[in-house]
Amino acid sequence: MNATDLPYGPITPEIIDLIRKAAGSDALVVDPEKLKDFGSDATDYRRIPELVVEATTDRQVQAVMRLASEHRFPVTPRGLGTGLAGGAVALRGGVILSLARMNRILSIDRENLIATVEPGVVTMDLKKAAIARGLCYPPDPASLDTCSIGGNAGTNAGGPSCIKYGTTRDYVLGLEAVLASGEKIRAGVQTRKGVVGYDLAHLLVGSEGTLGIITRLYLKLIPNPPAITTLVALFPELSGAMHAVSTVLASGYVPCAMEFLDRHCIELVGDLLPFEGVREAGAFLLVEMDGAPGVIAREIEEVGGICMECGAADALLAPDSQKRAQMWEVRKQVSLRIEHNSPLYIPEDVVVPIGRIAEFVEGLPEIERLYGMKIYSFGHAGDGNIHLNITADTRDRAQRVEEGIRAALERVLSMGGTISGEHGIGIAKMRFLPMELSPESIRIQEGIKKVFDPLMILNPGKIFPQERET
Amino acid sequence: MNATDLPYGPITPEIIDLIRKAAGSDALVVDPEKLKDFGSDATDYRRIPELVVEATTDRQVQAVMRLASEHRFPVTPRGLGTGLAGGAVALRGGVILSLARMNRILSIDRENLIATVEPGVVTMDLKKAAIARGLCYPPDPASLDTCSIGGNAGTNAGGPSCIKYGTTRDYVLGLEAVLASGEKIRAGVQTRKGVVGYDLAHLLVGSEGTLGIITRLYLKLIPNPPAITTLVALFPELSGAMHAVSTVLASGYVPCAMEFLDRHCIELVGDLLPFEGVREAGAFLLVEMDGAPGVIAREIEEVGGICMECGAADALLAPDSQKRAQMWEVRKQVSLRIEHNSPLYIPEDVVVPIGRIAEFVEGLPEIERLYGMKIYSFGHAGDGNIHLNITADTRDRAQRVEEGIRAALERVLSMGGTISGEHGIGIAKMRFLPMELSPESIRIQEGIKKVFDPLMILNPGKIFPQERET
Repeated sequence: MNATDLPYGPITPEIIDLIRKAAGSDALVVDPEKLKDFGSDATDYRRIPELVVEATTDRQVQAVMRLASEHRFPVTPRGLGTGLAGGAVALRGGVILSLARMNRILSIDRENLIATVEPGVVTMDLKKAAIARGLCYPPDPASLDTCSIGGNAGTNAGGPSCIKYGTTRDYVLGLEAVLASGEKIRAGVQTRKGVVGYDLAHLLVGSEGTLGIITRLYLKLIPNPPAITTLVALFPELSGAMHAVSTVLASGYVPCAMEFLDRHCIELVGDLLPFEGVREAGAFLLVEMDGAPGVIAREIEEVGGICMECGAADALLAPDSQKRAQMWEVRKQVSLRIEHNSPLYIPEDVVVPIGRIAEFVEGLPEIERLYGMKIYSFGHAGDGNIHLNITADTRDRAQRVEEGIRAALERVLSMGGTISGEHGIGIAKMRFLPMELSPESIRIQEGIKKVFDPLMILNPGKIFPQERET
Repeated sequence: MNATDLPYGPITPEIIDLIRKAAGSDALVVDPEKLKDFGSDATDYRRIPELVVEATTDRQVQAVMRLASEHRFPVTPRGLGTGLAGGAVALRGGVILSLARMNRILSIDRENLIATVEPGVVTMDLKKAAIARGLCYPPDPASLDTCSIGGNAGTNAGGPSCIKYGTTRDYVLGLEAVLASGEKIRAGVQTRKGVVGYDLAHLLVGSEGTLGIITRLYLKLIPNPPAITTLVALFPELSGAMHAVSTVLASGYVPCAMEFLDRHCIELVGDLLPFEGVREAGAFLLVEMDGAPGVIAREIEEVGGICMECGAADALLAPDSQKRAQMWEVRKQVSLRIEHNSPLYIPEDVVVPIGRIAEFVEGLPEIERLYGMKIYSFGHAGDGNIHLNITADTRDRAQRVEEGIRAALERVLSMGGTISGEHGIGIAKMRFLPMELSPESIRIQEGIKKVFDPLMILNPGKIFPQERET
């Protein structure tokens, strides 16, 4: 039986009444106009839910899941709707369970370097709260001003600092989650380490709301690095920039960001770059180091030297935080301008071995030519994570573009890479999953899904292309 | 049905023949004298296996598992037998599958900072191979000279450097594993990041060989820190030492080790300590910093200052690598002397919030008195991980000691801690598992076990106290 045939009941007025009784009127959104706001995330996938519950307590989450189990309606958890894979779209209808109002930072424990937070906390709010105590919560997805910690955990979000500090998973020590049954479990620890039983906490991280609804997180913090410094460099060719990346890493430097833009991207945002001769450039590189001021001042100079040795046309230090912010603004403008300029726009985020980025990106013009599309590449050179922004000048070209994406992903996999570094699978990459995972691996994962959610009511229709009846 | 009733067949001569045909004669150990060598790990748990297969290829591992599925005999994977929880003991008989000969370092990829290794590689061998390429594999369990990477992954081993660098799980990017069925899966990635499907790689890490047999690991490496420096300090009271630990961390320092010894331990190894007046001391603290030489030289001085402000009687720098090695030798001698001096010796390894270590350890004399035992505490102050070495002067006291352990673990849990930071559950802590995990969490974990291993043939009798028939 196919997923579309799963016998979900509709959200009847009776069910709405039961949910209202259990969760309270204030938590319910029933106004059709307001429901529209919960119909999508940062993708084009769209389905207006039948009902939205804006939870403020885990008891409400439990009550909704108990009713969902009893009446078999789908529940899709939602953070702040910034996902890039459609994970928070109620694909099979039913209830959107919004965690946006569960947004309290419960504690920043300076003695133990642990933050306890609810899932709806905006990532930047946690980062600021940590900094105010001299601490740092490193993960920095591009949407950090508007995304939630719970959503970050659901997708195991990463960002530029991943190269030095890792992804969200590396900072989740433990969590509380409500299961499909409505029962709540605590997984992982509230201490700095622990190895008791299977690692359910890190299994829930990255499971895109399909295994449980995270209602509380215990997060590892680190001391806030005392200083940070930024270098930008322009290269005539991408290969030179990537040679600089590899050389910097092999020389023992540990940057906290190594971001690149390819030729197409530079054409789009060249006006924002502080260099002459931008039009001819093949790559833009941004490197950041954090740590003790004296050390990073010396090291960033040395990194600049490596860039020049690797053929950079020019390399500049961002002398103050304002200049630094400008450089990051360039990086942000790229996405905005690509999306704005392109009728058809598909954000992929592949990973290849760092040493093969240049080879991969230099192979893209062939794919562009064959499939009639334009591919903007930029991203995290330091960990091989490339944002492939695939565009076409007309939406009519969708089928050919689809084949082009598949060709690009095949090349990624042939290089030992992975089809998603940060965004997750959701709906957007579901059809590509079997390109990377073996049938046996998918079978095991589907088995795990059924252990957590035997009725298939939690965020159905995501990740696995062949949902089956239980 | 209880685990002991699981209908495993014996390893008949016919089965041995089949295994010999599939895996080759060279891989088989049948000599009863030699089988004894595979009867235990670093615990007192002991059962001589019926057969040992020393695999050199994953195909042999697959062949054994296919036969085990067909004839339903238990298979217990084994690294180098240094485990502290009985995880590698063939509790239900059957076959020990030794990975000791799969000990090749397949590559140290300097460009991508990734090591590809077989599970039988000795941890120290990998560390040395990484250093030879200017890189570092940080995890450092105490047994690193004799333990295997595969065993480290099975138990998610940590060590002193965990405070800065995390545990084995943080370095496993991806892996290959043979499942109970004999099928092989690849999980995780061979790149620096990836979020495709559920995180099976990190679920297998820490699963103590109950979900699959890891046959290859893709491990993250980091640049080797250019320098390291060591400080040791003696405190009249443990509370002063722990105050120093908290103050150092809250001041933004990131040591790569913060190890302590309590009063009992100091009595045992006082002769090795470079201090006067050792007999009266309440705590010994060792702090290490790694990084740029100039920075850490300054920082370790400052840490010394904090120690003195927190009441240290004395604080000394280890001026060279020889002195540094001597200080670590003290830490190693503690375990050896405790074990040597005590007829009854049980190593527990709890974790409490860093800020409550002193309170916890200072409460131990009451438990010692009530239950007639002596508890040596030492370990990783920087992450709250305390090795509780519980001893009694006679083995006859086992029942009372058992009650004392339970009382200590209850105290750990009431402080928000966990009953194991590094050793894992295995057999040794199985009976305590329900103290920490809820029935619902255990039910989910048992469900996961059955998805991977429906016939319950892979390392049966471990982790979960109530194994049930499928």
